Amino acid sequence: MQANSLQIPINKIEKSKLNNVDFNNLEFGKQFTDHMLVCNYTNEEWETPHITPYQPITLDPSARVFHYGQAVFEGMKAYKDEKNDIFLFRPEENFNRLNKSCVRLSMPEIPKAFFFEGLEKLLNLDKAWIPSGIGNTLYIRPFMIATQAGVMASPSDSYKFMIICSPAQSYYSKPISVLIAEKYSRSANGGIGFAKAAGNYAAQFYPTTLANQKGFQQIIWTDSATHEYMEEAGTMNVFFRINDTLITAPTSDRILDGITRKSLIKLAEKLNIPIEIRAVKVNEIIKAAKNKELKEVFGSGTAAIVSPIQKISHQGISYDIPILEESYASKFKEVLLNIQYNQVTDEFGWRYAVKKV
Amino acid sequence: MQANSLQIPINKIEKSKLNNVDFNNLEFGKQFTDHMLVCNYTNEEWETPHITPYQPITLDPSARVFHYGQAVFEGMKAYKDEKNDIFLFRPEENFNRLNKSCVRLSMPEIPKAFFFEGLEKLLNLDKAWIPSGIGNTLYIRPFMIATQAGVMASPSDSYKFMIICSPAQSYYSKPISVLIAEKYSRSANGGIGFAKAAGNYAAQFYPTTLANQKGFQQIIWTDSATHEYMEEAGTMNVFFRINDTLITAPTSDRILDGITRKSLIKLAEKLNIPIEIRAVKVNEIIKAAKNKELKEVFGSGTAAIVSPIQKISHQGISYDIPILEESYASKFKEVLLNIQYNQVTDEFGWRYAVKKV
Repeated sequence: MQANSLQIPINKIEKSKLNNVDFNNLEFGKQFTDHMLVCNYTNEEWETPHITPYQPITLDPSARVFHYGQAVFEGMKAYKDEKNDIFLFRPEENFNRLNKSCVRLSMPEIPKAFFFEGLEKLLNLDKAWIPSGIGNTLYIRPFMIATQAGVMASPSDSYKFMIICSPAQSYYSKPISVLIAEKYSRSANGGIGFAKAAGNYAAQFYPTTLANQKGFQQIIWTDSATHEYMEEAGTMNVFFRINDTLITAPTSDRILDGITRKSLIKLAEKLNIPIEIRAVKVNEIIKAAKNKELKEVFGSGTAAIVSPIQKISHQGISYDIPILEESYASKFKEVLLNIQYNQVTDEFGWRYAVKKV
Repeated sequence: MQANSLQIPINKIEKSKLNNVDFNNLEFGKQFTDHMLVCNYTNEEWETPHITPYQPITLDPSARVFHYGQAVFEGMKAYKDEKNDIFLFRPEENFNRLNKSCVRLSMPEIPKAFFFEGLEKLLNLDKAWIPSGIGNTLYIRPFMIATQAGVMASPSDSYKFMIICSPAQSYYSKPISVLIAEKYSRSANGGIGFAKAAGNYAAQFYPTTLANQKGFQQIIWTDSATHEYMEEAGTMNVFFRINDTLITAPTSDRILDGITRKSLIKLAEKLNIPIEIRAVKVNEIIKAAKNKELKEVFGSGTAAIVSPIQKISHQGISYDIPILEESYASKFKEVLLNIQYNQVTDEFGWRYAVKKV
């Protein structure tokens, strides 16, 4: 297929909502832009995507997504530089992961041209919604849901793929306190933990609410069989620094293959930071915390890039972790922001310039 | 709260769809009745339910159910006897389980009166849709979804509880062939396997499709840690008969507490069938199959009541299971049908007469 070969019909909004939005008081994920991309799947094929004003969608009450949870998504960001050019960060990784999620949930893969040309057309159309300034972004949410009516527990024969976008302000990621899971679990061997499936998130809300009530913002999930190994934090992968060495768990069918995670691993190599990708025993981390050898813990993800962790708790005991002035976390964040906002040469080929279409 | 104290507003359909339906050619779960029950949750409380014509629902594209999978459901049936009286089977169990699912998914519990009075009003209104004849039923699908707009991975603050109903014909449950899971898993320790959560079903579609391609209709899931223990079949609990003894796995946080399952356990006791509720080793069942001591395998669930299994496959070897003339499965089915259709005295107190309201 040729680049830009698609004709994507656009139904423009009559009056933009842009002037009604206070860009200095944006709540994350609440305000959406004027338009959205919609692509319907029926009769075993994807129709050409189209762009419409952002608006509610109508589904039969028996639609599969409501009953059997066929729903996957991605999280991406668009960045604007000083010249008002727009960039994405490793969007091919999101595209590939979305389709991996689709396969695991028995949903049809979205064609690459539909994803990229649809997204780029949408970003051009709603370009004024992308806030300027380092740290400000347009959060992009591609997602797919099963739409077939009927309460039979089998894969849907119709789907809707959509992209919606929400402007987001830069925010200071306050160091968080986390609980290491001892009872509840996020995913099973041979399950769907590696997929960005909607059902993985609802499953975490209750244990997370219990953790919140004890003063912890998030949970670091452990393996469901033994709770002896660190996995991920549900919306973030997790890195541990023991003395000068960074450690993170390998991805598996239980752990999301985070794009920020894999970027940090590459950056560590580049910055000559010793990094080990291996099973991380809870006991090892607790021992390091006791010995004051645990220098940093942080989460990585699209939303916060890196999110420093100031306290971990296990078996009722909390361990404070120093927040260093010159941390790996802050270094990683700085380098990534520079790449994302077109401030430096991108030797990794991660920055993706959005075409003007 | 007093019985029947609720005023449930009804918006009746202008013209019933009843005459357009061929009750001799019903596909399971596809045709819905004229009306549905709707109950909205906002501002931390449930509004009084109302009944409207069955119709599509409209949601924001960022509604939580599409992105984070907060969705739970139940499956029930209404039965009509020769006098056109309507009965349910242990509906309190469905109500209690729905609320257990809600708690685990951080969703608000539905008040008992809303569930029962709403359901009974709906059944009275759509009474003509309940087919007569033993085995014919009205399949009832209560479900709840998260409706709040916004892509933040946290529990929704608004929900919709609905009941939709679909007439279903009696059908012959042809014995099925099942694959014992060796790689994929349905649920984790400390996960949501015990809940009737939408996400549990989508996770099974892909492995089940792979099994279908090999000629198996369903999978018997095993524990995710070792794959050495039998769990459930995803839409059914599973019973094994070795010689004269029936064995089924205990419920856990990984296994659905099936209402048919627990009824069969009671019936076995009543019928003096030896029954053991204990961990079921895969090896034990395979050994019994090799020794011809495995006399029956069947699934239990609301849809098929009991579903005989004629073949189990493990590590590439298939074992045929005799389909007995006088099986426990057929005895159980007969007794349950007699109770459900008001043919016999119900010494268990399982039959629930729907009030005429």
